[in-house]
Amino acid sequence: EEVSRLLALKAKLGGDAAPTNQKFTLKTPKGTRDYAPQQMTLRQGVLDKIIQVFKRHGGEAIDTPVFELKEVLTGKYGEDSKLIYDLKDQGGEILSMRYDLTVPLARYLAMNKISSIKRYHIAKVYRRDNPAMTRGRYREFYQCDFDIAGTYDPMLADAECVKIVAEVLDTLDIGDYVIKLNHRQLLDGMFEACGVPAKDFRAICSAVDKLDKSPWEEVRKEMVDEKGLDGAVADKIGEYVRLSGGKELVEQLLADAKLKAVPNAVKGLEGMQLLLNYCGLFNLESRVSFDLSLARGLDYYTGVIYEGVLKAEPGAVGSPVKASPVLENGKPVAADQGSGTVGSVAGGGRYDNLVGMFDPRGKAVPCVGVSIGVERIFAVLEAKFAASNVKLRTNDVEVFVASAHKGLHEQRLRVLNQLWDAGIKAEHSYKLNPKLLAQLQHCEEHQIPLAIVLGDAELAQGVVKLREVSTRQESTVPLAELANEIRSRLKA
Amino acid sequence: EEVSRLLALKAKLGGDAAPTNQKFTLKTPKGTRDYAPQQMTLRQGVLDKIIQVFKRHGGEAIDTPVFELKEVLTGKYGEDSKLIYDLKDQGGEILSMRYDLTVPLARYLAMNKISSIKRYHIAKVYRRDNPAMTRGRYREFYQCDFDIAGTYDPMLADAECVKIVAEVLDTLDIGDYVIKLNHRQLLDGMFEACGVPAKDFRAICSAVDKLDKSPWEEVRKEMVDEKGLDGAVADKIGEYVRLSGGKELVEQLLADAKLKAVPNAVKGLEGMQLLLNYCGLFNLESRVSFDLSLARGLDYYTGVIYEGVLKAEPGAVGSPVKASPVLENGKPVAADQGSGTVGSVAGGGRYDNLVGMFDPRGKAVPCVGVSIGVERIFAVLEAKFAASNVKLRTNDVEVFVASAHKGLHEQRLRVLNQLWDAGIKAEHSYKLNPKLLAQLQHCEEHQIPLAIVLGDAELAQGVVKLREVSTRQESTVPLAELANEIRSRLKA
Repeated sequence: EEVSRLLALKAKLGGDAAPTNQKFTLKTPKGTRDYAPQQMTLRQGVLDKIIQVFKRHGGEAIDTPVFELKEVLTGKYGEDSKLIYDLKDQGGEILSMRYDLTVPLARYLAMNKISSIKRYHIAKVYRRDNPAMTRGRYREFYQCDFDIAGTYDPMLADAECVKIVAEVLDTLDIGDYVIKLNHRQLLDGMFEACGVPAKDFRAICSAVDKLDKSPWEEVRKEMVDEKGLDGAVADKIGEYVRLSGGKELVEQLLADAKLKAVPNAVKGLEGMQLLLNYCGLFNLESRVSFDLSLARGLDYYTGVIYEGVLKAEPGAVGSPVKASPVLENGKPVAADQGSGTVGSVAGGGRYDNLVGMFDPRGKAVPCVGVSIGVERIFAVLEAKFAASNVKLRTNDVEVFVASAHKGLHEQRLRVLNQLWDAGIKAEHSYKLNPKLLAQLQHCEEHQIPLAIVLGDAELAQGVVKLREVSTRQESTVPLAELANEIRSRLKA
Repeated sequence: EEVSRLLALKAKLGGDAAPTNQKFTLKTPKGTRDYAPQQMTLRQGVLDKIIQVFKRHGGEAIDTPVFELKEVLTGKYGEDSKLIYDLKDQGGEILSMRYDLTVPLARYLAMNKISSIKRYHIAKVYRRDNPAMTRGRYREFYQCDFDIAGTYDPMLADAECVKIVAEVLDTLDIGDYVIKLNHRQLLDGMFEACGVPAKDFRAICSAVDKLDKSPWEEVRKEMVDEKGLDGAVADKIGEYVRLSGGKELVEQLLADAKLKAVPNAVKGLEGMQLLLNYCGLFNLESRVSFDLSLARGLDYYTGVIYEGVLKAEPGAVGSPVKASPVLENGKPVAADQGSGTVGSVAGGGRYDNLVGMFDPRGKAVPCVGVSIGVERIFAVLEAKFAASNVKLRTNDVEVFVASAHKGLHEQRLRVLNQLWDAGIKAEHSYKLNPKLLAQLQHCEEHQIPLAIVLGDAELAQGVVKLREVSTRQESTVPLAELANEIRSRLKA
């Protein structure tokens, strides 16, 4: 009997769901999302704050197409190239969706022979990765990039990028963070000092990059079992990559017998010394950490690398989100509970050779830049707002124009026209004869501060009622003075 | 001899151009462009003004992915479907780039069961069309859409969309314009009255749509020769589509014996009457024109249709641009010299059935909306600026921090840090020892209003020189008061 009831229920549900027009499941593509008005308000607030920081440092905006010739992207992303979205060959050029904003910048600089620029670019990029959307990891996601291109003296632009990361994370107020710093030359020098064959530097670097999500034992296994590294060499690397600290660590490593003998290592350490000095002048000592386990995934870095990481603050912002794996170069990053950090929200570094790859004569334009991982930040803020029960306003309407009784729609349109022409944000119900209560409820639900209530008696005297929605106080205002009165009320 | 010299020259040029790294021509995909900082400044200015209008009418922002399931776009665009960009099948879902923002809105409303919203959406859309980039016609281009969805009383929302077009074109100040109005029901009724078979309404409507770029004789030829319409029927249509005017034309047509007999025609005319009445209340009489030749390309319109068209003002804005064919539903539109109009910069209409196409039960959500053709507007403004020789500022830097002599880079970083932390937009040269003249020239070139000049003598006394770049006047300011002094200078 139970079974037959369930079968009947199933048949009923199936019958109800039978489509009439729509023959497929309505959804957005895998790994993508719509932004509803509430989410757009949050998103715009975050982007505005980031743009403010970028402009404070003299950034100029550029924009590039969402797709590029496939050849532009080829050979720039190593293993991650498999994540690139290709367009169908419909005759004409072979195109791919941009994977980041850095390669398009390099293409732009080379194509236009620009040798210096301080540019920001806020736009969506595309990666066919395994999405984890509740954690802010998508296939279509925003990047907010700031890059300084040009031939300048060492570490001045690099240090400013670190300062920018700190300013962005400070202004967004999403919790305590640390900016990890390292240097690709030092990593290469350290590999050399440990006895890694030069041809294996990038592969071993990729393995080190996994240290923020895997314990050393697993990374060592990858180095030895998969990448054929000598166990003793791996153990030497293991000693270095556990180190992190400040200036004193640089001093210690400059005195290290093995590293001292390798020019690349010394150059990297001297670079770190200068960078830490400049970070000190920017009051960032407590924010930065020289961390030898930081490797970053992408091949194109040639100097300083850095990563802004939120520290774990259980319960402070919304732990289900904060404790989750997060976006890191499009790859999942497990929470590193041991070090008390939970998620990378910014990253970047120096890439001096990328622009040269696009120049017919190989002319290089040195670059350093930072990318803010805003999807992760949106996810943290969305969780925060969901927990707080605060309702963000999604429109900016200042005045609702209401009718007290029937037959006033033309009067409403006249008043609306007067307000719009005066630059006041105003709306009405689009109904000929809406109920007054429904109109006033709309104002309260949407947090509209003021309402005008039209009535024949008042209109006959050339006045209207102006109502303060939150207090429900009404006063009488002459129609001719309405715009001015509203403006002064809104200021108060 | 001449030939050999040319051959030598060719060999030389060929030799010079031989690529070392880059094996292909560096370019953006066909029909797309980069936006340089100057163009971004212009673009952001236009978009900000449009957003201001949209918000004045209570618009909320949404965003949707740049691609959709291919099935979402299928069957929505008629002949234009061939212009849709498809993504390569890389396993998983079959995706296409969005062709407009209207179909994604309809998908969003149906998917989330939203029955009323006033939303704006500013984003790029994609059409594999023949680009004409100097005229503002691209394969990747911005649309700025405002739509009102919901079951409301007739023409209230429709008239507000017309008002929005007028406000946008007024605020952008790009020249005189007219907003043409028509009604799909009237067009269908008129076709019926003339004797067009019902199955041919859309095809004949498409032919009428070409009247803004082709003379009547050609359109008639298409109707008769290609679409098999009776010549006498075409001639009757020809009489109607030449008509344009205001309320008096509606009266005249309501009295027309042929139209009076067709319920669709009468309904359409009554709708126009109401719309023109509301447009009058919005002070738009001089801006709108009831125009029976307006048909609009897309199939999904069901009621009012409208189009904002710039009038020809030879020499007023930049005639080479203004006299060119322009974007119209992704199709080239030749200048209609006869009527004195040159280009459609806004368009829209009512589409009451599109959302229902996505709903499993066919539940309809009536919609009316407007799309602003901003690329065309950017093109007009770019030509205007190119002609004016005005140089737009592309960054907002308020203060440049300069060194008067060598050895001051650390002091510069300290001062910069102080300014940034005070929220002041500041930059320096990223060189250890830049020349003072080069630094001051940078300020003048980039229209930076203020410069701080650091020198040992002043620093010893705890002061710096603050220079007004345009007047070159310098005064001495204590370091501790620097941020406040700069703020008050910038306000003045």
